[in-house]
Amino acid sequence: MNLRKSLEAEQGLFIAEGEKVIRRAVGTGFPVRSFLMAHRWLEPLSDVLDTLDAPVYVADDATVEGVAGFQVHRGALASLERLPLPTVEDLVTRAHRILVLEDLVDHANVGALFRCAAALGIEAVVLSPRCADPLYRRSIKVSMGAVFAIPYARMPNWHEGLGTLRASGFRLLALTPDQAAVPLDKAPMGERVALMLGSEGDGLSSRWLNEADEAVCIPMSATAMSNGVDSLNVVAAGAIACHALLRP
Amino acid sequence: MNLRKSLEAEQGLFIAEGEKVIRRAVGTGFPVRSFLMAHRWLEPLSDVLDTLDAPVYVADDATVEGVAGFQVHRGALASLERLPLPTVEDLVTRAHRILVLEDLVDHANVGALFRCAAALGIEAVVLSPRCADPLYRRSIKVSMGAVFAIPYARMPNWHEGLGTLRASGFRLLALTPDQAAVPLDKAPMGERVALMLGSEGDGLSSRWLNEADEAVCIPMSATAMSNGVDSLNVVAAGAIACHALLRP
Repeated sequence: MNLRKSLEAEQGLFIAEGEKVIRRAVGTGFPVRSFLMAHRWLEPLSDVLDTLDAPVYVADDATVEGVAGFQVHRGALASLERLPLPTVEDLVTRAHRILVLEDLVDHANVGALFRCAAALGIEAVVLSPRCADPLYRRSIKVSMGAVFAIPYARMPNWHEGLGTLRASGFRLLALTPDQAAVPLDKAPMGERVALMLGSEGDGLSSRWLNEADEAVCIPMSATAMSNGVDSLNVVAAGAIACHALLRP
Repeated sequence: MNLRKSLEAEQGLFIAEGEKVIRRAVGTGFPVRSFLMAHRWLEPLSDVLDTLDAPVYVADDATVEGVAGFQVHRGALASLERLPLPTVEDLVTRAHRILVLEDLVDHANVGALFRCAAALGIEAVVLSPRCADPLYRRSIKVSMGAVFAIPYARMPNWHEGLGTLRASGFRLLALTPDQAAVPLDKAPMGERVALMLGSEGDGLSSRWLNEADEAVCIPMSATAMSNGVDSLNVVAAGAIACHALLRP
C-alpha cells in the first residue's frame, strides 16, 4: 500500500472509486487514463464513458479487487491524471478565508477538513510539504468529493511557507488547545485570514505558532478539563474554527 | 465480532484498552473483572493492580491478541462491569445543555461526539434505543475517555423519548442540513436546551423532526452547495452545534 501511495503521487495519478466520485472527478476536468469496473456499471456510467477515449476494462468484482489491491465497495474505479497544482501565491490571490494544514498525516482527517472547509465557504486550502495527500483514495471518500470542489496548493518549503501568506496580506491565526490563547470568537478577523491547524498528535509546530499573528483557542469546559478531556480532535476543532471564521 | 459486541452489552461487560483508558475506567468506578496484559505493563500499572482484587493474567502480545480477538495496540486490557445507567429523567434533572443522539450506528462517531460534548461543556447525552454503544472499545478509544467523563442514559422507547425531555422543560432543537431551517446562531436558546443529532446517512427521523420545537441548520456556503458539497459529517456538525449551544 505504501508503494501504491508513493507511486500514485510520483507518477501523477490518483484513483476515483464509485460512480459518484468518478463523475465528480471527471466533471472537475481530471483526464481519465482508464476505467476498471464490474459489468453492471457500464450502463449507469455510459454517459461518462461515451464522451471519453479512455479504455474501459470490465471484470468481475473479485478481479477488480485483485487488480486494485483493496476492497472495492462500489465496483467501479477510474485512474485519473493529476493536474498541476497552482502555486500558493496564485491560489490565494482572490481568497479571503483560507485553511492552512501543517503535517496532518491521516487521510481521513484531511478529507474531513476539506469537506468542512468547502461546506462552510473557506475558499482555498494550503498544505505543508508533509501533509497527507487530498487525492489519496480515503481522503477523497471522506471528503465526499470536496477535494475536487475546493482549490488547494502545497507549500514547496515549510520554513518559508507562512512568509508567502503574510506577504499576500493574510492575518495568520494559529489554532491551539492552549486555553491562554485568545478565544476564537473574540479574535479580530480582518479582510484576509488564514487559519492554521496542526497535526493530530502534536498540534502546530512551535515555529509556526511563533510566526502566527495570533494564537486562538476554542474555550473548553472547566469541568471537562478537570476530567481530563482537554481537547477536541482536529476535525471537530477545524469545523468549529471554519464556522467561526465566517462570521460577519 | 458481532457476537462479542452483543455479549458485552448483554452480560454487562466492556473492555478497556491501554494504560490510560484502563486508569480512567477504574477511576470512574467501574468494577474490574480481570486484567490481561503483557508483562511490561505490570510495573506501570502496579498502583492500580495493587488496590484491586481482580485477577491479572499475564501473557505475551500474541496470546493477548489471540484471546482478545482483535489487534491490541497497547498491550493491556481490562474487562469491566458496566454500571446501571440512570433513567433519562434522573440524568437530566440538573442539566441545562444536553445532546440527544438518534440511531447513530458508527462507534467512532459516537465516541467523537462524546469527546466534543464533554470538551465543550455539554452536561449529558441521551441515546435513542438503537444508538451505538458508548462503551464499545472503538467508541471509548475515539472519545479519548470522554465516555467516562460525561453521564448518559438510553431512552427505553423511541416513540416516547422526546416527550420525557419536553416534560423536563427542555427546548428541543433538531439539527438538519435543510437550509430552510433557522440558522443555529440565530435560534433562541433558553434555560434548558436539548440538541438532537440524527444518524450518519439519513439524519433525524421525520417523527423526531416534527416533534422538535425548532429545526436549526448550520448555514452552508452557496458555492459549496452548487459544487455538490451540501452537508457536514455528523461529528463536524455536532462540534459546531455544541459550540453554538454554549454561547451566552
